[in-house]
Amino acid sequence: MYRTHTCGELRVNHVNQTVTLSGWVQKVRNLGGMTFVDLRDRYGITQLVFNEETHKELCAQANGLGREYVIQALGTVAERSNKNAKIGTGEIEILVEKLTLINASEVPPFTIEDDTDGGDELRMKYRYLDLRRSPVRENLILRHKMGFEVRSYLNSQNFIETETPVLIKSTPEGARDFVVPSRMNPGQFYALPQSPQVFKQLLMVAGFDRYFQIVKCFRDEDLRADRQPEFTQIDCEMAFVEQDDILNTFEGMTKHLFKTIKGVDMVDTFPRLTYADAMKYYGCDKPDTRFGMKFVDLTSDVRNSGFKLFDEAEYVGAINAEDCASYTRKQLDQLTDFVKKPQIGAGGLIYIRYNADGSAKSSVDKFFTEPQLLEIGKKMNAKADDLVLILAGGLDKTLNALSALRLEMGTQLGLRNPNVFSPLWVVDFPLLEWDEATQRFYAMHHPFTSPRIEDVALLDTDPGKVRANAYDLVINGVEIGGGSIRIFHDDLQQKMFKILGFTEEEAEAQFGFLMNAFKYGAPPHGGVAFGFDRLAAMFAGIESIRDVIAFPKNNSGRDVMIDSPSPIHNDQLKELNIALTAPKK
Amino acid sequence: MYRTHTCGELRVNHVNQTVTLSGWVQKVRNLGGMTFVDLRDRYGITQLVFNEETHKELCAQANGLGREYVIQALGTVAERSNKNAKIGTGEIEILVEKLTLINASEVPPFTIEDDTDGGDELRMKYRYLDLRRSPVRENLILRHKMGFEVRSYLNSQNFIETETPVLIKSTPEGARDFVVPSRMNPGQFYALPQSPQVFKQLLMVAGFDRYFQIVKCFRDEDLRADRQPEFTQIDCEMAFVEQDDILNTFEGMTKHLFKTIKGVDMVDTFPRLTYADAMKYYGCDKPDTRFGMKFVDLTSDVRNSGFKLFDEAEYVGAINAEDCASYTRKQLDQLTDFVKKPQIGAGGLIYIRYNADGSAKSSVDKFFTEPQLLEIGKKMNAKADDLVLILAGGLDKTLNALSALRLEMGTQLGLRNPNVFSPLWVVDFPLLEWDEATQRFYAMHHPFTSPRIEDVALLDTDPGKVRANAYDLVINGVEIGGGSIRIFHDDLQQKMFKILGFTEEEAEAQFGFLMNAFKYGAPPHGGVAFGFDRLAAMFAGIESIRDVIAFPKNNSGRDVMIDSPSPIHNDQLKELNIALTAPKK
Repeated sequence: MYRTHTCGELRVNHVNQTVTLSGWVQKVRNLGGMTFVDLRDRYGITQLVFNEETHKELCAQANGLGREYVIQALGTVAERSNKNAKIGTGEIEILVEKLTLINASEVPPFTIEDDTDGGDELRMKYRYLDLRRSPVRENLILRHKMGFEVRSYLNSQNFIETETPVLIKSTPEGARDFVVPSRMNPGQFYALPQSPQVFKQLLMVAGFDRYFQIVKCFRDEDLRADRQPEFTQIDCEMAFVEQDDILNTFEGMTKHLFKTIKGVDMVDTFPRLTYADAMKYYGCDKPDTRFGMKFVDLTSDVRNSGFKLFDEAEYVGAINAEDCASYTRKQLDQLTDFVKKPQIGAGGLIYIRYNADGSAKSSVDKFFTEPQLLEIGKKMNAKADDLVLILAGGLDKTLNALSALRLEMGTQLGLRNPNVFSPLWVVDFPLLEWDEATQRFYAMHHPFTSPRIEDVALLDTDPGKVRANAYDLVINGVEIGGGSIRIFHDDLQQKMFKILGFTEEEAEAQFGFLMNAFKYGAPPHGGVAFGFDRLAAMFAGIESIRDVIAFPKNNSGRDVMIDSPSPIHNDQLKELNIALTAPKK
Repeated sequence: MYRTHTCGELRVNHVNQTVTLSGWVQKVRNLGGMTFVDLRDRYGITQLVFNEETHKELCAQANGLGREYVIQALGTVAERSNKNAKIGTGEIEILVEKLTLINASEVPPFTIEDDTDGGDELRMKYRYLDLRRSPVRENLILRHKMGFEVRSYLNSQNFIETETPVLIKSTPEGARDFVVPSRMNPGQFYALPQSPQVFKQLLMVAGFDRYFQIVKCFRDEDLRADRQPEFTQIDCEMAFVEQDDILNTFEGMTKHLFKTIKGVDMVDTFPRLTYADAMKYYGCDKPDTRFGMKFVDLTSDVRNSGFKLFDEAEYVGAINAEDCASYTRKQLDQLTDFVKKPQIGAGGLIYIRYNADGSAKSSVDKFFTEPQLLEIGKKMNAKADDLVLILAGGLDKTLNALSALRLEMGTQLGLRNPNVFSPLWVVDFPLLEWDEATQRFYAMHHPFTSPRIEDVALLDTDPGKVRANAYDLVINGVEIGGGSIRIFHDDLQQKMFKILGFTEEEAEAQFGFLMNAFKYGAPPHGGVAFGFDRLAAMFAGIESIRDVIAFPKNNSGRDVMIDSPSPIHNDQLKELNIALTAPKK
């Protein structure tokens, strides 16, 4: 038996008990005469004490221990004279009578402390040491708890967790698939799922009624920061539902998670905003609604002022930064630099100060009289001491830049409290997006999304105008999940594939089984998928999903710890009936 | 809103309520004047009633419904005069006032009934219809419940469910890997995990202490009956444990599952049997212990009788079939045919009848006197009316054949009650197996399994004799799970790789990261993995794991429903820097 207790368990009520602990040496302090060893495991840290006077050899043994050595110690629990209120075991220590070295350790390449001196690359290479650090391990314990609570909730709501296959079929629509050569079927390939989409729909056709799965998905994309080739979804589907049923069910799940994991009570009913309004008021489809600062469209108000930028702009939009009239020249210059950054791309920033004395002062005083500025102020709901910030230009670009500026101002003004959680359903997404490059429509969500019933006629006349029964759950400006009501009639599905540029043969080859399934009594259905990595990162209060994944890959899709991917044997290639070709330059 | 209640929910206390149901048409019975429709969903069946006299049009509409049509019905709950005790809703029916056709259905290719007329292939092609049948769906609901209870139990025991990567590294040791070409790393491949073995060990090095995961694993093997290329494991690992700690923990889990899912109380402590004894008494390492009928070694007892088969046999073994002395000539001939089947391979079967009158009669009376037969009977614990069955020949082959004969007799005598569950830990497996063909040792479990401490010295002198700290959980003759205490010192791990024929370079290239991890304070650890598909099949009381998998593959690794694997586009091959080669003939 390696231990009677863990290193996080002992309290004053254990005093005088003989115990055995096992764990890692966090620190050895030799105070001359007395040696203290902090013994660590997942559950906590316990102080071991060695007295040179009474236990000379034992004490020498303790002084020889190095960081991260694995040891076992037998001793008696004693109350500390010098208590440490910071840790649970801080009221006791162990007077050690027997010490066993289980495994030595080389000096770790970085310190195993909450704040480590290890750089990112080193920590990934020695991920098993990085995971020893409390903050990293606690993130993964949090993730475990979240998964458990998701399952508890959905189980209580009659959802059946059903595993769908990982070896499926490649479909060129959407992102790039990872493929797996089939040895038994030469020249043929499986693909790894980008999501279990069609399988969960088939489970609805099969009458499963309520399905969920916490499941790995795969996308062979060039990795931007914070994307992983394999990621995890909370994937859900329900039959005989309308959009409201789904929104209500997953509001329930979200509230349950926030309550049980973070002790946070969310608003009773999550606000809903159409995509059109989200774009109009926030310039993006995942607004951070922890603060207002909604856009005001000034396009027609400022036209014909003689200021060329405004006169020619497709869109002039503004936000009101409250109590910021006192922003200095320098601050305003910094904001201007911010919006002019290439990734934001505005041409410049116009401001109007509404002073305490009732006057208004702007960077375009040449073109606007004070009464005109005050008129704009009225429209902006600007009070004394407020600062109105204006951007102008092409519609999409300006909305996008104003959205970035709004978030920046929210941050500067401390309106984005990480302990406040503001949920929002964005609904009525467009069904289709036109792509100029390929001159065709793409599905904004995916090809199985149902158009809104009242917009179906538009499919033939003006497909770009058709709204979808699609929705996203956004919290604090982060898209946490999204889904849609699905098409469940084979003729509508066929039409959809046609609009997306599939020939009948292509549609049949790739999705014939689904359209066929729709011929045998498919029920109305819809669902949602949550990005579990992203949700866990939000709960952990961190930016990167990497830190809630035990063994993440880097931006080239490599696992630097196991050094993968790697070359394989020629025999393996031969058996799979494939050969390597020279990479294109 | 599609429904106010499900089709399994309404009872007499709902009488007179107006309800809306949605579901599938199971059956339409037109009795002339009255039409009855059985409406089905996942939760049950509810009878809808249409009265021609009062609702002529509605009734005509109902008469036009076909099997598997999806409909919505609004009506009033009424108490039935003719109650059906077989279903939960059998006391009520719905007097329909409004009927909506949601989706029509073509005639299904097989009947959606508990006993279907659909053949295996057809059912797999239309799996979404097969899954509508109650027994299939119930199996998957059972599987869901089992997964949920496994998680509840392990969560309560402080295990952390941690996802390990699916895109890992190919290692030629063991079964064949599925591989995934990396587009971003030309000429390199990921592999899909055959198990998360090294990752769970690294989590122990990382101090996670207790890990589990219900996880998909992959093996590119030629599929024997009831093997799947992707399968699911309940994968577990613990640190600071000895074998007993693991056995006790997972006895607890097994008992919890049997209790909560099947209401079965298992024995308090699972019996343990060494591998050596399992082979000696049952001729196999996963004995069905629902019944005794242990082997008795008669090799030395029957030597020098003049009967050549016995005199020359490496092994003569026997079982006692109680109360079978009355077996007829025909029955004995059938048993002889059974043991002579090629897959069993015995040369013949010798029997001794112990008659009610105290006499003994055998098929080898020429070589044995009656007192000799009675002497054998004594050793066999045979009483009057018992039948001793004897096989002789080479050791391994005869043990194997006698094991098959024992199971056959157990079946014939009704000793293998499917409602009795007899668990057994088989322990002390050999560490290594010698392979004649390649003239080298292979790891019986895997290369990370620790030898028993008292056998370590034998590694240098007689590796084949070394016993491992490895164990299997066997229930009713089915291997449900297995695991081992692991090596956790890099020098012993290195030695193990050497014995297995790895060069130092190979060991370093494939498992260097693990041996490196062992240098930084690896704790003692061990674990176990359960075959979740197999366990679910046992709980469902069925033979094939296919029936507890929503979308299984056939014996050529094909999903015939989605028609996968399939050819991929040339562009995809090009991007992946691979080309197809002609398959070898």
